[in-house]
Amino acid sequence: MTKTRAGGVTNFDAWKHAYAARAENLAVSEVRALFSVVSRPEVVSLAGGMPDVAALDGELIEKAFESMMANRRNYALQYGGGQGDLRLREQIQGIMALEGVHGSVDDITVTTGSQHALELISDLFLDQGDVVLVEAPSYVGAVGIFRHKEAHIEHVFTDEHGISPLALAEAADRLAAEGKKIKLLYLVPNFANPSGVTLTAERRVEVLEICKERKILIIEDNPYGQLYFGKEPPKAIRSLDDSNVVYLGSFSKILSPGLRVGYVLAPPAIREKLVLANESAILSPASFAQMLVSEYLSIADWQKQIVTFRDLYQTKRDAALTAVEKYLPKIQTTRPDGGFFLWLTMPTGLNSKEMLPLAVNELVAYTPGTAFFGDGRGAENIRICFSHPTAENVGVGIERLSRVLNQQIDLLETFGEGN
Amino acid sequence: MTKTRAGGVTNFDAWKHAYAARAENLAVSEVRALFSVVSRPEVVSLAGGMPDVAALDGELIEKAFESMMANRRNYALQYGGGQGDLRLREQIQGIMALEGVHGSVDDITVTTGSQHALELISDLFLDQGDVVLVEAPSYVGAVGIFRHKEAHIEHVFTDEHGISPLALAEAADRLAAEGKKIKLLYLVPNFANPSGVTLTAERRVEVLEICKERKILIIEDNPYGQLYFGKEPPKAIRSLDDSNVVYLGSFSKILSPGLRVGYVLAPPAIREKLVLANESAILSPASFAQMLVSEYLSIADWQKQIVTFRDLYQTKRDAALTAVEKYLPKIQTTRPDGGFFLWLTMPTGLNSKEMLPLAVNELVAYTPGTAFFGDGRGAENIRICFSHPTAENVGVGIERLSRVLNQQIDLLETFGEGN
Repeated sequence: MTKTRAGGVTNFDAWKHAYAARAENLAVSEVRALFSVVSRPEVVSLAGGMPDVAALDGELIEKAFESMMANRRNYALQYGGGQGDLRLREQIQGIMALEGVHGSVDDITVTTGSQHALELISDLFLDQGDVVLVEAPSYVGAVGIFRHKEAHIEHVFTDEHGISPLALAEAADRLAAEGKKIKLLYLVPNFANPSGVTLTAERRVEVLEICKERKILIIEDNPYGQLYFGKEPPKAIRSLDDSNVVYLGSFSKILSPGLRVGYVLAPPAIREKLVLANESAILSPASFAQMLVSEYLSIADWQKQIVTFRDLYQTKRDAALTAVEKYLPKIQTTRPDGGFFLWLTMPTGLNSKEMLPLAVNELVAYTPGTAFFGDGRGAENIRICFSHPTAENVGVGIERLSRVLNQQIDLLETFGEGN
Repeated sequence: MTKTRAGGVTNFDAWKHAYAARAENLAVSEVRALFSVVSRPEVVSLAGGMPDVAALDGELIEKAFESMMANRRNYALQYGGGQGDLRLREQIQGIMALEGVHGSVDDITVTTGSQHALELISDLFLDQGDVVLVEAPSYVGAVGIFRHKEAHIEHVFTDEHGISPLALAEAADRLAAEGKKIKLLYLVPNFANPSGVTLTAERRVEVLEICKERKILIIEDNPYGQLYFGKEPPKAIRSLDDSNVVYLGSFSKILSPGLRVGYVLAPPAIREKLVLANESAILSPASFAQMLVSEYLSIADWQKQIVTFRDLYQTKRDAALTAVEKYLPKIQTTRPDGGFFLWLTMPTGLNSKEMLPLAVNELVAYTPGTAFFGDGRGAENIRICFSHPTAENVGVGIERLSRVLNQQIDLLETFGEGN
């Protein structure tokens, strides 16, 4: 038995000599280690990043299925094209238009969730050592992919208005001066995972200019854009430019992640390669799931369903912020205007990863901030996902968390760091 | 406008400077170029490799859906674990047992079709220049993946009894002597795509021994094993050894490819990495499709459905062989005991790829043999897929094909090569 990088115990491996170099970079994520904990019913999980699918109107899914089986049965059960179903791509145009994004159906590729779009894009662009610029913090699933591609992940200073254009230009120029190839800027501009922060309209323009000048491709990942509370976020960066941005969207948060249907809008030459990469990896996106989504979009009032989600998540966000104010007065939090997450910052000296077992002991789970950095930072941060538990349980979970956290703060204040 | 490797015209590419080295190896497959042709209703397509999903009992899918929505709705619509649903993995154990394969549920990973299992395995093992040994010919989708990973693809002599153990040992030793790292042997031992050939029981033992001695991991891809006509194929290579074989299975041919549900059984240490790679690429396999398959397996007489498929494909195979004998007397064909394909060998000097436009002109499509080689061979071969058209159309298609082929043979016999 040997120890894995991530500290787990693994079986003796007779094939150790045979792995590719990049296989070394597959690490157990902090999020994954929590899955077994999360499934215990007595634990309130503020970890994960799951939508509240119970709020989905099941009857609409049933009607979509019936309609699909009546009208497109043999297409749904068969292999399809590598780019995805044409009718679904037309419907995706309508969804993207809500964010100000307009693109040809020819430039949309349907993927196995937007995660696979990011995997395909990364595989297409990243040689070992190439730089990907990301927010600080950044989405754990993106950090994992970039690490797997042996990329250099550079976190750029990010505040409550999103990534800093100044810091972005500085980082790009510094790394270029070091002789590094800067390939991608990866961003979640709306209600980011994990920070909850939204990039301002002004900064979107600046970020685009900085990247255009330096020929850095922007990967704009926008799963949460429609889940705003109150006013809409600024239009997508892709709405400002069609040749320097690859735009990722998903049905995971406005319909269901269990279907694994996402999409990517890319400039024609990139899209051409994306389709080939998609075919190479999975032959064709699942016809069944695509056509179910397509039928749902054509028969259901899906915009009303999104309004339902918005109201629900806003109530839960309010419950989360109220509980943080009440139970965690010494903790800083972001105040997101949409999406799924709060990002907490604890006093220096506390360690969210080390604290997790104590929290689980109090029957609450969260994701330690270290999961969202490729460089070891984040120990003082906690990501709270408020979207999945009930609003009541969001409050209960934060109250439980406070027992651990406030005790740790007391210890820190009494004895100082490293007690 | 520039020419792609595969000869197509592409858009001007502003990102040409930025692609990863491996992106160069994404080529348009011969199979793909046919998709647009195939969709014209007047063309009989003997190309593709599609099951006849019209023979599937739709009522059973409907019942499975209803049961799933009644009992597991919120699981089906939600993210799942990266390894796949436990109940489905238990059911997969029962399916694998039909091939003599026994493994722990812990060592099964559910994937987005078995294609994605092959992609993940290849990504895990193949550095640039590593050798993959394959049959001659080999599955086009596998050749595509190995090429994309920048591997050295070595075709090993294959006859009507499957891959030759003698040639396999010779190739492995020759390449090892050249200093190459031989990582994988990829095989479709039952009713292979594209040859239709089945590896004998004796050779399975020999192939396993050869690979064990040389520490070459066997990737046994078995999508067609249950689709035998008459007697069962020999037990899987994995039934003889649990530590040197990674076994791939799929629901695409016994249920539906539109669901994209496949699986991989791998030794524990490899499986551990596979699950991480699966999570990195797609977060989790589609819960919805998995649970639909699981419900189908639990409520339907799925073995009876397989018998239906067997009988249907046997009738079509018979129609194909009868038509080849009648219309293509000068052409050699394999005589498969199961699966989807005939592999035709034409007289030396003919070129199946160049002949394809003439065939399409006669309203029939096929896949040129070159698609199934990574080294340019196959010009004298044609893959005929008999599974998808009606038995009558299989005959019609081969009759149409004979008009082109026999004319080409006449020309060749009259004027010799290169006329």
